[in-house]
Amino acid sequence: MTSKTGATGVSEGEQVKSKSQLKKEEKLAAKAIKKEQFKTMNKTNTNDQESGEDISVGKYGVLKMIQSSKSVVSDRVFVDVKNIMTILADNSVWIRGRLHTSRAKGKQCFMVVRQQQWSIQVLAVVSDTISKQFVKFCSNINKESIVDIKGKVTRTPSKIGSCSQQDVELHIEELWVVSQSANQLPLLIEDASRPVKGDDDEDQGLNIKVNQDTRLDNRVIDLRTPANQAIFRLEAGVCKIFRDLLTAKGFVEIHTPKMINAASEGGANVFTISYFKGSAYLAQSPQLYKQMAIAGDFDRVFTIGAVFRAEDSNTYRHLTEFVGLDLEMAFKYHYHEVVDVIGSLFTNIFKGLRDNYQSEIKTICEQYPVEPFKFLDPPLKLEFPTAVNMLREAGVEMGDEDDLSTPNEKLLGRLVKAKYDTDFYILDKFPLAIRPFYTMPDPDSKVASNSYDMFMRGEEILSGAQRIHDFDYLIERAKHHQVDIEKIAAYIDAFRYGCPPHAGGGIGLERVVMLYLGLDNIRKVSMFPRDPKRLTP
Amino acid sequence: MTSKTGATGVSEGEQVKSKSQLKKEEKLAAKAIKKEQFKTMNKTNTNDQESGEDISVGKYGVLKMIQSSKSVVSDRVFVDVKNIMTILADNSVWIRGRLHTSRAKGKQCFMVVRQQQWSIQVLAVVSDTISKQFVKFCSNINKESIVDIKGKVTRTPSKIGSCSQQDVELHIEELWVVSQSANQLPLLIEDASRPVKGDDDEDQGLNIKVNQDTRLDNRVIDLRTPANQAIFRLEAGVCKIFRDLLTAKGFVEIHTPKMINAASEGGANVFTISYFKGSAYLAQSPQLYKQMAIAGDFDRVFTIGAVFRAEDSNTYRHLTEFVGLDLEMAFKYHYHEVVDVIGSLFTNIFKGLRDNYQSEIKTICEQYPVEPFKFLDPPLKLEFPTAVNMLREAGVEMGDEDDLSTPNEKLLGRLVKAKYDTDFYILDKFPLAIRPFYTMPDPDSKVASNSYDMFMRGEEILSGAQRIHDFDYLIERAKHHQVDIEKIAAYIDAFRYGCPPHAGGGIGLERVVMLYLGLDNIRKVSMFPRDPKRLTP
Repeated sequence: MTSKTGATGVSEGEQVKSKSQLKKEEKLAAKAIKKEQFKTMNKTNTNDQESGEDISVGKYGVLKMIQSSKSVVSDRVFVDVKNIMTILADNSVWIRGRLHTSRAKGKQCFMVVRQQQWSIQVLAVVSDTISKQFVKFCSNINKESIVDIKGKVTRTPSKIGSCSQQDVELHIEELWVVSQSANQLPLLIEDASRPVKGDDDEDQGLNIKVNQDTRLDNRVIDLRTPANQAIFRLEAGVCKIFRDLLTAKGFVEIHTPKMINAASEGGANVFTISYFKGSAYLAQSPQLYKQMAIAGDFDRVFTIGAVFRAEDSNTYRHLTEFVGLDLEMAFKYHYHEVVDVIGSLFTNIFKGLRDNYQSEIKTICEQYPVEPFKFLDPPLKLEFPTAVNMLREAGVEMGDEDDLSTPNEKLLGRLVKAKYDTDFYILDKFPLAIRPFYTMPDPDSKVASNSYDMFMRGEEILSGAQRIHDFDYLIERAKHHQVDIEKIAAYIDAFRYGCPPHAGGGIGLERVVMLYLGLDNIRKVSMFPRDPKRLTP
Repeated sequence: MTSKTGATGVSEGEQVKSKSQLKKEEKLAAKAIKKEQFKTMNKTNTNDQESGEDISVGKYGVLKMIQSSKSVVSDRVFVDVKNIMTILADNSVWIRGRLHTSRAKGKQCFMVVRQQQWSIQVLAVVSDTISKQFVKFCSNINKESIVDIKGKVTRTPSKIGSCSQQDVELHIEELWVVSQSANQLPLLIEDASRPVKGDDDEDQGLNIKVNQDTRLDNRVIDLRTPANQAIFRLEAGVCKIFRDLLTAKGFVEIHTPKMINAASEGGANVFTISYFKGSAYLAQSPQLYKQMAIAGDFDRVFTIGAVFRAEDSNTYRHLTEFVGLDLEMAFKYHYHEVVDVIGSLFTNIFKGLRDNYQSEIKTICEQYPVEPFKFLDPPLKLEFPTAVNMLREAGVEMGDEDDLSTPNEKLLGRLVKAKYDTDFYILDKFPLAIRPFYTMPDPDSKVASNSYDMFMRGEEILSGAQRIHDFDYLIERAKHHQVDIEKIAAYIDAFRYGCPPHAGGGIGLERVVMLYLGLDNIRKVSMFPRDPKRLTP
């Protein structure tokens, strides 16, 4: 039995049943658990005998380590904190959560118990059922300890601004410490959760902020903030929507090797592995393998997995290991068949996040405020020369076949936003000269190629193209680029035995999430980020 | 427009619409395409002038490389081969597929065109609309070339045993080569698709078989066999069901780093990476990171990704890189809460495959026959001592705390199958002595631990346990195992600030698919396998 499946009493129809069921199950649970608790309780209460007999004996203490003993048979039903609402008023419920804060005040102890992004106030007051020792015990528990609490759901006279559950609190009946946290915390969740104000992210204002390295060094604590709980749920959502949509369109998920025998794309920025008596390399992209799957008749494939870049870039947007969402698709006559699939994929990701992750987005925005992400349906598609003209009109000097510099990319994002009111757009027809040898040239132009990038809030999040599927032409283009044919033999061979025309692209998951949320650093959206200076935790 | 979304005329209701729509679209397509085809056609027909004027000019040839030219605007609707049935009789349809075989016979040419696991016969006969040159052209196309064919759907007098579409064939109207295959193929799809008979897999019988290294060296061709098309679709299905089920149960998908700073579990069998000026290692499992996510309050997590083992094992079931399906889950009182979730996960995977991948299973069994996979719902759960007794009764000598050897593991699988009629079971309560230091001891036993393996057809496919979540106890157990505490500091630190009790496990995707299908080698279910001797393609 888990907190997800327990009676929650949320839906109107279940209300009566939940109440009676809860009471019945509590009685059963009380009986079953009692024995174990009495065994363990003494060790916590012996220090606390100053004030004579303790009327709350057996109602609080440190629980023996939960080791799945046969003797502990509990039917206790736990309620999720997010589901404790006024509808449950006057019921006793059990919760398991973290002690977020506790504040002793005379004969009272105010606690906040946190469960992921939700929290509730718990009140312990000395009374004819709650002993002084019990209240003192509550106020001495280390923050971040995990506690089981039984309490009566009680309406509050006024809203509790500091908790997610603002209309109710729990009046304590039992409290057991399940897992104790160390006394000293390297960072406080309160500090790590504080809203960002002004431009200077972490160090602004009078309140304590937590710098990024402290967060990452203590990631298990940092991950507990409401914003982080929401960020990684939303990130999981992006992957889910990506897969569900492509699967519905007939794409097959594949898995591609990360250890490869030759450095793809020339050998720069690649990590080397000792492989038995030889060497191998970490794949910088699954592209060759996606294309082999197309040549192997899978028609439409996607893959989600780690990609590696040995770039010594210490910026807000570079990682040495990130998650690639890659797809490749055979088409009939025009690579725009593929561009349209990718474009609508993004539109649907944005819609899916907006419609199904509203609570996560709200939670994240409370700490990191940002303008909502805007997009058009169907998405805006511009051609490269149009972008060059827009930049020139804004005063930028650049040649027709120059690549977009990072500042120009961002400026273009602002110009596009101002003109079209969208944070997402597709830039098609990049100059052939700045794309890799396997990119299909545009047959209707002397300088363009059948390639495209896609952008979110002015930064590239996808790069893709029609690839050359013709064996002879691929060799011709490789020679033109002075690529050593022998070194790419395995790649070229994939096209020797017939291959349909195809196009695809690779998406950086972390960049999509960072830019969708308007966050300032990619490390905020990588659970355990890797950069040239960080390999831990 | 793609073959997946085109009019297929399968459903009864759409029949009339499809027919008229098809004709209308064909006319449009014919107009649009004609221009391009005339341009390119000459180069193929010039060699074929022996017999005077060609009445089929403009109806066949090698298409110019599809380069997404603006001048080719086609509304041609392609039909999937699998959807060509008698209901479409007398309609002309377009298909794009591979020339599987062609056989010239006087004034006729019999072709089989293949599309993934489906195939159809195409007939070209010299007539008053089809020239001798056209038929000759057909018979000279290299096998495995990709062709666009327009043909009239025609009922066949008797079933065509060699094709998936047995009741219809296409009478050719047009044929265009989209992508030519090389003349010499390193292996033939016919040979690579031949059913296995007898015990000795590849080398049995009079017919040519293709050995495994030839297959893997030429994977883009090998992947085109019907069985391989089906295997990797089924493999994608396992991942999909795994994720869908766990997501529905509140699990969050996470991504864990593959590059780590310390070799997990002591440093044996780990690949070393050059990491800028230092070194890193490839993760042997995501376990630490899953556990950190639990300590970080994600409650239930899963991850699918590459795991690496630098074991020099050249067996049918070892890979140096494989796909791990990993999960970890906080529980309330007993790790069986987690075992039950994993058990029902497997039951649901087996049900999902049986119910939704019947066609794939059938296709695979045609080449690799096997007894259907049997399972119980809920799954069978045995305790380790029971297994020891069963083995002893079968004559095996072993101690109470000995691990299962591979032969004993397989024997036990046969004994379990004979007694319980299931190919899947859970073995719980492994001896503490043979499990890692972080495994939670069973508090009710002197020798057992809260750990389990799961088996399919007598081979282990999951290993898991309740992990020690208590900081002090973890150190105590590490010391007991003489593990250097300093080396695992990062791991131990994860439990310093409170952690709920939790358990989990890791599943080898390739093993699940291999054993579900009863295949004899794990390389058959890894699209691009990696072993000590293979890093290509």
